[in-house]
Order: sequence, then C-alpha cells, then structure tokens
Amino acid sequence: MGEPAGIGGEIALEAWRQRRTAGLSPFFIIDDPARLKTLAARLGIEVPVAEIAAPQATAEIFPDALPVLPLAQAVAGEPGRLDPANADAVIESIRCAVALARQGAAAAVVTNPIHKQILMEAGFRHLGHTEFLAELCATSDAPVMMLACAELRVVPVTVHLPLRRVPEALTTARIVEAGMTTAEALHRYFGIAKPRLAVAGLNPHAGEGGQLGSEDDAVIRPAVRALQEAGIEAFGPLPGDTMFHPAARRRYDAALCMYHDQALIPIKTIDFDGGVNVTLGLPIIRTSPDHGTALDIAGQGKASAASLLAALRMAAEMAAASRRPPAVP
Amino acid sequence: MGEPAGIGGEIALEAWRQRRTAGLSPFFIIDDPARLKTLAARLGIEVPVAEIAAPQATAEIFPDALPVLPLAQAVAGEPGRLDPANADAVIESIRCAVALARQGAAAAVVTNPIHKQILMEAGFRHLGHTEFLAELCATSDAPVMMLACAELRVVPVTVHLPLRRVPEALTTARIVEAGMTTAEALHRYFGIAKPRLAVAGLNPHAGEGGQLGSEDDAVIRPAVRALQEAGIEAFGPLPGDTMFHPAARRRYDAALCMYHDQALIPIKTIDFDGGVNVTLGLPIIRTSPDHGTALDIAGQGKASAASLLAALRMAAEMAAASRRPPAVP
Repeated sequence: MGEPAGIGGEIALEAWRQRRTAGLSPFFIIDDPARLKTLAARLGIEVPVAEIAAPQATAEIFPDALPVLPLAQAVAGEPGRLDPANADAVIESIRCAVALARQGAAAAVVTNPIHKQILMEAGFRHLGHTEFLAELCATSDAPVMMLACAELRVVPVTVHLPLRRVPEALTTARIVEAGMTTAEALHRYFGIAKPRLAVAGLNPHAGEGGQLGSEDDAVIRPAVRALQEAGIEAFGPLPGDTMFHPAARRRYDAALCMYHDQALIPIKTIDFDGGVNVTLGLPIIRTSPDHGTALDIAGQGKASAASLLAALRMAAEMAAASRRPPAVP
Repeated sequence: MGEPAGIGGEIALEAWRQRRTAGLSPFFIIDDPARLKTLAARLGIEVPVAEIAAPQATAEIFPDALPVLPLAQAVAGEPGRLDPANADAVIESIRCAVALARQGAAAAVVTNPIHKQILMEAGFRHLGHTEFLAELCATSDAPVMMLACAELRVVPVTVHLPLRRVPEALTTARIVEAGMTTAEALHRYFGIAKPRLAVAGLNPHAGEGGQLGSEDDAVIRPAVRALQEAGIEAFGPLPGDTMFHPAARRRYDAALCMYHDQALIPIKTIDFDGGVNVTLGLPIIRTSPDHGTALDIAGQGKASAASLLAALRMAAEMAAASRRPPAVP
C-alpha cells in the first residue's frame, strides 16, 4: 500500500491496467479494497477491484481484476492529506507483505513509498523503510541499497547522512561488506556468473595519488584488494566522474559508490523514471519504485507508474533467477 | 600546444583535417612546426603545416594548411615521454596565446592539456593552468570553471580539493561570486538575455530540512537569495540527484554545483567526449578540451579530437556572441 495520501494507490491501479503491455507477473496489493475502488472512481479509470482471502487466489484473478488482500482496518486516505490515523495500516501492510514473502506465499515484496515523518509522529521508531524491513526479517547484517535501471546499477555505501560525515563513516570493512552483499545478490538474483564491481573513489580524480585526499588510497584501495582476495572481480578506486559514460558502464555489473549523490546523480540523470530501488542482503526479495509519496500531485492521475512497473518487473525477474540453478562462475 | 608528449598535437592535426565537416573557424597553433610535421608523418596523415609570422595570416592559409606560429625554441616532444626540457616551450605557448588574445590579434584562446607535475619539476609555481591564465591576465577575481556540452552547462563552485574540505570551503560569498560570474558570462558570451541558474544542494536531498546537514539552509539558501536580489534568476538549493535529467535541465541555463564530482558526474555521463572546459571571469575567451594529456595513447592516432573540436567551436561561438549587441534581458 505505502502512504495512502500519496501516489501509491493510483500507480498500483495504473500498473494493473498495463499488466499485459508491460508483461507483468501477477501481483496482489495489501490495502483497503474500498479505498482503491473510491480512488479508481475519482480518477475515472476502470479497474475492477477483487478482494481476496489469501495470496493463492492471485494468479487466477489477476488477468480480470486487481487482487486486494484487505487490511484489518479501513483506510480513509484522502489524496495529499497526511493523517497519523493511517500509520497503523501502513505498517500493517508492510508487516503482512514481509510475513507472506518469508512464508513463501509471495515470491517478492514491492513496497510503495511511505512518508516517514507522519509514521514517526504516530510512534514509528525505525530509521527508514529498509531498516524496518531488516528488523522484520530479523537480519543482523545491514541491508544494502541498490538502484538499478536498464543501463546501470549503483550501490551507495553510505546513504542518508550529511556529506561532511561521509569521510569518517567510510571504512574499509563497510565497503567490503557492501561489495560482498552486492556480488552475492548479482549472482543469485540477477543470474550473473561472475559479477564485476567498479568501485568509485571518494575524492576528485580518486585522490590523484594523495594530492586531493587520502581516503582513496588509505580506505578504498584496501577494500578493493580484500574483495579481489575474496574472489570478486572488483576494480578501483576509479575517478567518480569518468566511470558512468556508456563505454565505462559496459565494464562492470554494478558501481559501488561512496555516498548518496555519487550513486544517484548518474542513475537519475540516465533514467529518471525507470529506476528501481532494490534492497540486497535481506532473506526476501524487495524492490520499490525510486521516488517518494509525491503528495503534491496525489489523486490527480498525473503520477507516472514507470518506476513501479519497473520495480514489479524486476522483482519478478529476481524471483525467477533465484529459482533457476545458480550461474556457474 | 599543451604538453608535447601528450595527445595535443595529434588532436590539433585531426581538428584541422575536419575543419570543413566540423565547421571550424580558422585557428592557428603556437607550436614547433617541425614537431608537427614529424608527428603527421609518424601518424601517416596528410596535414600541410605552414609556418606563419603573425596571427593575421591565419584566415588566408587555414583552408589549405595548418597555420603554425613558431615558438622561439625547438620542441622534441617524443609521444608518451615527459621531458622537463620542454617546460619552457609549454609555458611560452600559453603566455604567447594570452598576449595575442589580450591584444585582439586572436579572438580566443583554446588550450591543449598540460601536465602539471612535469611543469612543476621545471619550476612552474601555479596551482594549475587556469590560475596561470588568471595571473597572465592580471585578474584579481578567481576565475570560474564551466563545463559545457550541448545538453548541459555545469559550474563547480569548489573544484580540486578533497571531499572532506568541501563543506568548510563553501561560503555564501563564494557561491554568490561564482553565480554572478556565470550569469554575466552566459549573457555576454552565450547570448542568453536572462540566464537561469539552478543551484545544487550539498547534502542528500538538499539536507531534507536540516535532517541531513545544515549547509543547504545555512550557506547555500542565502546565496540563492543574494543572487535573486542581484536580479539573477537563480533557484535552489535543489537535491543534486534529481536536477540533471532531461526535463529538469530544460529549466536552467547552467547548474551551480558545490563540488567537483557533483558537477562532473552528470556532464561526463551525458557526453563523455564532447564536453568543453570554459574559463569564465577572465578578460579573454578561453576554452579547452575536457580531458588530460593521455600520455598512454599519445602518438598512436587513437585519441578522439571530439572535445578539442567542441572547444574550438565553442570559442568561436563565444567570440561571435560577444561581438553582437548584448541580448536584452
């Protein structure tokens, strides 16, 4: 469901409408069926909403109607108007999705955007969506965020912290961990026999031999070596600015970046609408559209479903790859 | 000339060969004619090299031969092999180009890449190429670097310093200065009546209201306001990751970025070969190709002349725009 005041509902309705042209695998949504019916009527689009009692009904219903597994409570969800009264439903939807995926009743979880502040006002105590998922999955390892589009996959080693905190937060161990998790996921979920990781430097020109900063040689280079010693085709540190053009991208399967904008600038420049957020290092498959709740345009039928469509497709592909025999390195 | 051991000579020869198809304005090169003849022979390309006595001869000779204004000394310039003995010639070439431009004997200066370390070994005491040009021009203001391609112009407010030094180096005054210089240059040299500047934030999501860093609100926002008060259409701070996709780029004429990679990642991702480095804030027009000396491939005929061609074209366009009556705001 995600935040009911946001665009999650309408892009889910739209995704179902495009199920054939977009080649989607069957999905169900954990939401309030009445809310989705009202939303479809408001938008003037024809989406038959079918309440289901269990995920198993999805495949049969999906061609003709959008399967909705109902939440315990009704959700008002006035577009654009945040309401702390919906917080329990938002959290319940996530909790339920993860439980079903862990039980094997769903192949993957695709999360619609949530609004962290309103959840925190209602008592939510997690750093974010991903951290909450990690707790629900009882994983001790830090999950790793990957952004992926058709042309590029990026992994920011540090994510949501002020730029001035990045140098101290970067450690060799953290880079190695992110690299290992990434390589493992590329192998298991993306069918890549021998994943190649390009590791970005932190400073301009990757430090230019120490003249523009010490971290590239002191922190990042040892991490690249450790990854290589673990049998991973890692290389770097590379100057951040020259590693994302088309010819450079062909040399690797994912770019390990040192901070938020270094990873997100190239991918959002290349493919603003089609990027998918994938969480690696969880025992379940989880993707999500790479945008927020977009409260300002919610309920108006303006929101693009492109990223959700890409997230649904990627989740299905990852699930299919993980069922095939593993790629031989 | 630039560094004679680098690719400067061969891309200049190649640029002359493409003078018609690339629509180039006449240019002359300040170099050793004998060196260029040897280089052309080595590469097996036919480029008649014509020694000229003064820049004024360029227009007549250019259609049929590459005009070369000779340096006082011969230059050996073995491709790929740096030699401190060439340092004086490298510096003399720059000095001469600037002097001719300041006298009005040349409309603009296009510099081929130099190799700073070898010049420093020979006693060069400037932070870089641009700083040397500023000194030759006797400008007290700090020159501003702009990278430009057909789809995007970016200006890094801080350039060659370690990432951890960026937050403290960023001041409101420095951002305002860079913005003023950029707006003035867009007006004067690019014929833009009312330049629009998009100003990037420093932190992820432009600080997310202070939760991800304080500089966006404390340092950058006042700079945007000051630019607006000076009559410039500036807006921001914008989240760095969402300001470089095609729809976002249509909203501004240049992006003011806070550090090296924030500016250079998007432009090199979009157009790796065709980017041009433009120095703003000098009393002369100066462009240069957006790459280094590429010693590893020098003398092999592999180097792409695309960025030098773009630099030559942009210099000519800037010169033409500055001769037209100014665009009305």
